[in-house]
Amino acid sequence: MKFMEELKFDSQGLIPAIVQDYDDGEILMLAYMNKESLEKTMATGRTCFWRRSLGRLWTKGEQSGHFQEVKEIFFDCDGDTLLVKVKQLGGAACHTGYRSCFFRKVNKEGKYDIVGEKVFDPGKVYKKK
Amino acid sequence: MKFMEELKFDSQGLIPAIVQDYDDGEILMLAYMNKESLEKTMATGRTCFWRRSLGRLWTKGEQSGHFQEVKEIFFDCDGDTLLVKVKQLGGAACHTGYRSCFFRKVNKEGKYDIVGEKVFDPGKVYKKK
Repeated sequence: MKFMEELKFDSQGLIPAIVQDYDDGEILMLAYMNKESLEKTMATGRTCFWRRSLGRLWTKGEQSGHFQEVKEIFFDCDGDTLLVKVKQLGGAACHTGYRSCFFRKVNKEGKYDIVGEKVFDPGKVYKKK
Repeated sequence: MKFMEELKFDSQGLIPAIVQDYDDGEILMLAYMNKESLEKTMATGRTCFWRRSLGRLWTKGEQSGHFQEVKEIFFDCDGDTLLVKVKQLGGAACHTGYRSCFFRKVNKEGKYDIVGEKVFDPGKVYKKK
């Protein structure tokens, strides 16, 4: 696809993708795509990433059912970051059960507060096989 | 600072920082911080990054005067991404003059459209010395 020619994947073939809620603009997470996962994302309309810790493609929600429906994709001036606006199924993006992965806010003492709200119980969503 | 113990900087000592407009939630840019630039950001209240292309600290706005006033800092579940909410002085974050660096939107043909609006003329803001 034409726009992919504008992208700069890093030395490991990856590009960071910011995932933002389409409706209210909350940042849900950041993950990495390679060319294959981006193509899969475009083809299926659901976010797919390269999961560095597992070394394989990872469709967000494949285990929890909490897929992300892609609404819009943008890329930045340098072509080295993607912005994906999504509808988050299940209401939460984070595997901890928080809506956003960014549920910890730095405070004035240089510590942090938990500011997110738990949407689901990870123990129930990620059932052991 | 205590929260920094939770952060995972990569093999080059960097962590990606998403910069979001504090008021309306628009994603302005993504850049990288090392420990020193994060400490400087915390100390000054203005975003400071590690500019990979130049190999030096870079206070956003140091040339244009378009600083970013830090309102809130968050970090994600894995501790490997920062989210910084800012007030963008000058109205635009991108060196091209667009408000957001993500001014190119992928369309159905796999090409892209320019969807951002130019806030300033880069030729006037970045004067040659």
